[in-house]
Amino acid sequence: MRRALQLAALGDGRTSPNPLVGAVVLDAGGRLVGEGFHARAGGPHAEVGALAQAGDRARGGTLVVTLEPCCHQGRTPPCSAAVIAAGIRRVVLAMADPHPLVAGGGIARLRAAGLEVIEGVAEDEARRLNRPFLHRVASGRPLGVLKWAMSLDGRTALPNGASQWISGQAARGWVHRLRARCDAVIVGGGTLRSDDPLLTSRGLRHSEPLRVVLSRSLDLPPQARLWSHEAPTLLAHGPGIPAQKHALLEQLAARGVTIAALPACEPAALMEELARRGCNRVLWECGPELATAALRQGCIQQLAAVIAPKLLGGLPAGTPLGDLGLEQVSEGRPWSHGLLSRIGDDLVWELSAPAEPRG
Amino acid sequence: MRRALQLAALGDGRTSPNPLVGAVVLDAGGRLVGEGFHARAGGPHAEVGALAQAGDRARGGTLVVTLEPCCHQGRTPPCSAAVIAAGIRRVVLAMADPHPLVAGGGIARLRAAGLEVIEGVAEDEARRLNRPFLHRVASGRPLGVLKWAMSLDGRTALPNGASQWISGQAARGWVHRLRARCDAVIVGGGTLRSDDPLLTSRGLRHSEPLRVVLSRSLDLPPQARLWSHEAPTLLAHGPGIPAQKHALLEQLAARGVTIAALPACEPAALMEELARRGCNRVLWECGPELATAALRQGCIQQLAAVIAPKLLGGLPAGTPLGDLGLEQVSEGRPWSHGLLSRIGDDLVWELSAPAEPRG
Repeated sequence: MRRALQLAALGDGRTSPNPLVGAVVLDAGGRLVGEGFHARAGGPHAEVGALAQAGDRARGGTLVVTLEPCCHQGRTPPCSAAVIAAGIRRVVLAMADPHPLVAGGGIARLRAAGLEVIEGVAEDEARRLNRPFLHRVASGRPLGVLKWAMSLDGRTALPNGASQWISGQAARGWVHRLRARCDAVIVGGGTLRSDDPLLTSRGLRHSEPLRVVLSRSLDLPPQARLWSHEAPTLLAHGPGIPAQKHALLEQLAARGVTIAALPACEPAALMEELARRGCNRVLWECGPELATAALRQGCIQQLAAVIAPKLLGGLPAGTPLGDLGLEQVSEGRPWSHGLLSRIGDDLVWELSAPAEPRG
Repeated sequence: MRRALQLAALGDGRTSPNPLVGAVVLDAGGRLVGEGFHARAGGPHAEVGALAQAGDRARGGTLVVTLEPCCHQGRTPPCSAAVIAAGIRRVVLAMADPHPLVAGGGIARLRAAGLEVIEGVAEDEARRLNRPFLHRVASGRPLGVLKWAMSLDGRTALPNGASQWISGQAARGWVHRLRARCDAVIVGGGTLRSDDPLLTSRGLRHSEPLRVVLSRSLDLPPQARLWSHEAPTLLAHGPGIPAQKHALLEQLAARGVTIAALPACEPAALMEELARRGCNRVLWECGPELATAALRQGCIQQLAAVIAPKLLGGLPAGTPLGDLGLEQVSEGRPWSHGLLSRIGDDLVWELSAPAEPRG
């Protein structure tokens, strides 16, 4: 199972809306005869790859797989049928697939065909691996990661607005790798106006994450680099387009930007839109106002703070977040430690949300 | 020498204004026959302790010591004379003592008496160990450490001023240990008014560090816990005492608070006063205004940031520092990584100032 989990992780950032899945086939004598993983949505499932590699040697053998084999015809045929057809005797699973089209149906089908099914092996690890997929299936929203870079005194900009570069080159490279693991990268109009960012993984992700601009005013620079750079781009706005903005939207649509009208120009509505578009994990790289709204609407499950060993100061200078409405320090409950890394001169601290829902 | 350095470190926080010193005596056959360290100002020097332990076995032997033996009569007799009298043949030193009363005089005296002197063994380590002492001798000011506790979004208080407790209990214990290594702990009147702190090491330091309040207005609460709690306390103010504050000063002096009139109510003037009072290392635990002034006046050589995994938010909320007058992000040069620790839920990041003097 450890090997199957390693294989599954190889697909990270490329399988959405599907989960990460890894599979290993052992022959009747317990020898490893096949390995597979789900490498991209629409591509073969992990079980199919592993069974194909094993061929006849799968007969009477064991399939070890990180997620329940599917039982529905999607872009590929149901895996449970393929497992049965290959003559597998025993299936060892990390966890059932909570997706409503599966949800135990694959396991039932295997058992009905007389196969032994062992569930729950390394389930915690498998759940951690597929946290974004599981979060989307459970909540209808992608998992949200909020990233910011700040100085050691908690500043994201100088009083004059200057913000490039607070973190070092190595940490900026780490952010590109983080983007490569996300299905979308979100900013607001303010960040677009002030930073003119590209928001790509710089080629680290095979198809770049969807760049998303959430804008209420649609007061957006027509010459932003985002619009012309070749990567998928979505402009999301609320109901009611100001009359003088129709021309801009037409112009951007003509340049390949997807325009999405949300029922409300709010983070929560955007999350539901992005879940419909197949996003499991999205990265918020926005300014304090939008970040605060996203937090307050429960759209952030993980934090990644890049902390540079510099002092910027300045009472009117930028800080990562706006008002959270707290009255007591004790209301700011601790986030859970994930990973702490020194990247170049900078610290990167990754954390997960407190167990109970926030705000 | 490694052992001598370990011994020296045992005196940390208790020897000021003196340096940390450790010494080891080997007999003529190279066997360890004596160990000593400087445990408190006014107490025996390291060499004297080690020689006393060695007794006659020191004759013809080697003294390994982290700092040049002194040559002046202070509260204790000169060590170089004691070394010669003990019949030591060879002295191995980490570094010369830069103090103007020594400055090579001890080495010269040993050589004049026919002893072999080897200098510069593990000098970098010895310099690091005595950085506060060396800084004071070189600059006439104690080494300044600025400590603050902030949330992950860089806040030291909520918009309503609430600030207790941002860091966890374990990190607050770490701060008590940090205080125990410092000769003074400094706050401004604002911190005294808002937090009513004790500023002690909670008994971890044999004699508590000097608690220092720097106040321009002398608008101080007469009932602050600081005034009544038994630990040495200094109130520093600038020239010109407001007429209505004379009574308060008299009252505090009667309660054992030392009153110091500085030529200017500024961090730099306070540092010179504290150097005169024998402080090698002082801890700034003040609010943003005083911290910023201390930084801008070159009174801070080390930072200790306690970062709690909490989000506090609030645009008008407190931040660790005020305006540093920077115009470009690149002017905020990186501080040097020292130690990074997870203490309870919190991070503690300790750093040293960039090599060149700051702004």
